[in-house]
Amino acid sequence: MIPDDNFITHESVPGPTKEEIRCIVMCKSSVSKNDTVVDIGCGTGGLTLEFAKRSRFVYAVDKNIDALDTTQKNLKKHNLTKKVQLIHKDALEALKDIENFNVLMIGGSGGDLPSIIKEGYKKLKINGKIIVTSILFETPVEAIETMKELDMKLDVVNVSISKGNILERGTMMIAMNPITIVTGEK
Amino acid sequence: MIPDDNFITHESVPGPTKEEIRCIVMCKSSVSKNDTVVDIGCGTGGLTLEFAKRSRFVYAVDKNIDALDTTQKNLKKHNLTKKVQLIHKDALEALKDIENFNVLMIGGSGGDLPSIIKEGYKKLKINGKIIVTSILFETPVEAIETMKELDMKLDVVNVSISKGNILERGTMMIAMNPITIVTGEK
Amino acid sequence: MIPDDNFITHESVPGPTKEEIRCIVMCKSSVSKNDTVVDIGCGTGGLTLEFAKRSRFVYAVDKNIDALDTTQKNLKKHNLTKKVQLIHKDALEALKDIENFNVLMIGGSGGDLPSIIKEGYKKLKINGKIIVTSILFETPVEAIETMKELDMKLDVVNVSISKGNILERGTMMIAMNPITIVTGEK
Amino acid sequence: MIPDDNFITHESVPGPTKEEIRCIVMCKSSVSKNDTVVDIGCGTGGLTLEFAKRSRFVYAVDKNIDALDTTQKNLKKHNLTKKVQLIHKDALEALKDIENFNVLMIGGSGGDLPSIIKEGYKKLKINGKIIVTSILFETPVEAIETMKELDMKLDVVNVSISKGNILERGTMMIAMNPITIVTGEK
Repeated sequence: MIPDDNFITHESVPGPTKEEIRCIVMCKSSVSKNDTVVDIGCGTGGLTLEFAKRSRFVYAVDKNIDALDTTQKNLKKHNLTKKVQLIHKDALEALKDIENFNVLMIGGSGGDLPSIIKEGYKKLKINGKIIVTSILFETPVEAIETMKELDMKLDVVNVSISKGNILERGTMMIAMNPITIVTGEK
Repeated sequence: MIPDDNFITHESVPGPTKEEIRCIVMCKSSVSKNDTVVDIGCGTGGLTLEFAKRSRFVYAVDKNIDALDTTQKNLKKHNLTKKVQLIHKDALEALKDIENFNVLMIGGSGGDLPSIIKEGYKKLKINGKIIVTSILFETPVEAIETMKELDMKLDVVNVSISKGNILERGTMMIAMNPITIVTGEK
Repeated sequence: MIPDDNFITHESVPGPTKEEIRCIVMCKSSVSKNDTVVDIGCGTGGLTLEFAKRSRFVYAVDKNIDALDTTQKNLKKHNLTKKVQLIHKDALEALKDIENFNVLMIGGSGGDLPSIIKEGYKKLKINGKIIVTSILFETPVEAIETMKELDMKLDVVNVSISKGNILERGTMMIAMNPITIVTGEK
Repeated sequence: MIPDDNFITHESVPGPTKEEIRCIVMCKSSVSKNDTVVDIGCGTGGLTLEFAKRSRFVYAVDKNIDALDTTQKNLKKHNLTKKVQLIHKDALEALKDIENFNVLMIGGSGGDLPSIIKEGYKKLKINGKIIVTSILFETPVEAIETMKELDMKLDVVNVSISKGNILERGTMMIAMNPITIVTGEK
């Protein structure tokens, strides 16, 4: 995994997704070398870069131009620009023009999650995965309901990680915000 | 419980202990109206005030004069000054001069935890409780070992709480740092 | 708090609610001596008994006759029968006949949560609290939405507790399932 | 990752390490194709198999013959026997005869953790990792202290995961016991 502090960040762009969460998302995605990945709401590019290292090609989508800029800077920094196409569009718009894919990662949906999942499902290959990560309480519930409707095989985990800060007087445990990861398999 | 934002704070003084942690500490202490309490490392006074509301008398000890000052301000704000004596001393020094007590709360020890527990144990009444709270990994281990030596009845809980921040787009779960609470009963 | 193992249990009745969760619920409820409490889905009676010890009167409601039986046994065991009326009815039915109250505790709703909250709200006194606890992901979302509609002041916490099992080779941390506690104030 | 229910288990052998923990351990180890790995306390073989899939060779050590038997059955089931040598010895004994390695995984030490870390360190290649996982409170503290002495670069995370059980009435969150992962880099 790329260390958290090895990403260029931007004040108006969320992320990068913490190392341990990126790690679990990679495992849940079962991504492999010949796979095509779509990353909706790429933000700082944390997940985009990890997918780029493990797949054939990634489409990174964001409505925020600063996010795409930041992702691009991080791709350059880690020599991964050739593996990624940046798309400055709304998620539903973007999905129309993209080829069929193996993994649809949704880290930010801007409120239209069920539609994005349903549209994405149409272009998702058999055994492909749709992954939704969120710090909100409502988003996983929406994701679960929509994936149930689509009869996808569901996996839901809530991950709470605290990191040890090594001080002279001891190891201080600092909590990261809990993230829920919903994975649906077609 | 006194709300977290209802305490006067000081930049060099830790605390107040979060509402939910204060709540569990009160329960674990079994404190009641006729009890005497000693609070080592009172900091902002979060636990001192809660104990003051539920006991006969509290001795609040801190080596940091700013902590005692801040605790005093909070006692005034909540009309509890008559229930508390502030002691500006090292914990071991302070314990020498205090009457026997029912609850010994140790929120900050400055590194001499086993000695404080052992000295405190001598003045602890039968069925009394020693409670150690910590954000460090090492402190609970020290507390458990010392209390085992003293043949105290042990209760250990690690508490991870996340609080919902109600936003328009949903409920964002914000993690508080995990706290370990070790309680020994004489 | 009454220790977890100090309750009579029944194989078909959930509970008792774990000690630390009962503790936080009591704090969130701000229950006091003159208060009237309604406990929907009383189960084993864990919360019913704690409320009975701290309030004027508790109405304990459950559709499962085994739950009421078990709660009654626990009330007898702890000499609290005079403080509680058991009601063998559906929640909405039961709420019709109960006097106005200060605390509405909903630990089990059987699927009609928004209606129960709305009906309960009508009989809830000013500054009174409605508390919903759940191990499900969907229930807190429903509770939050309904309480937002009613313009209640919201407090949401997710509580993950692990308990130390003291073994010879060390302290094994055993997780309890995470509980979400949603509190609305009128 | 191999699904948790895809391992052959044995009643007297702990494990397999849960999928999400195996996933984070693989990330923390930075294991790659040319690496040699030693797995102390292999148990059911959960981590052994994951390392075998990603490295050149794994030495799996356990004092419990049932553990080695179970690991062997799982290696066969997943066609990985050629990548692993099973060693039925005490950890310190076993380390004497093993070639230098890139990753030392310690999931069970039987009480002699500092010695195992120190002995392992001698055969650990530059930039190699020693990883200690534990459900005990004391073990990470021992690991941290020993790795500090050896001047290793430390990473400490405590991982609490709850898994969603999809029921008709909602998604029930079931907690897994929290695991602490201490990683030291040479």
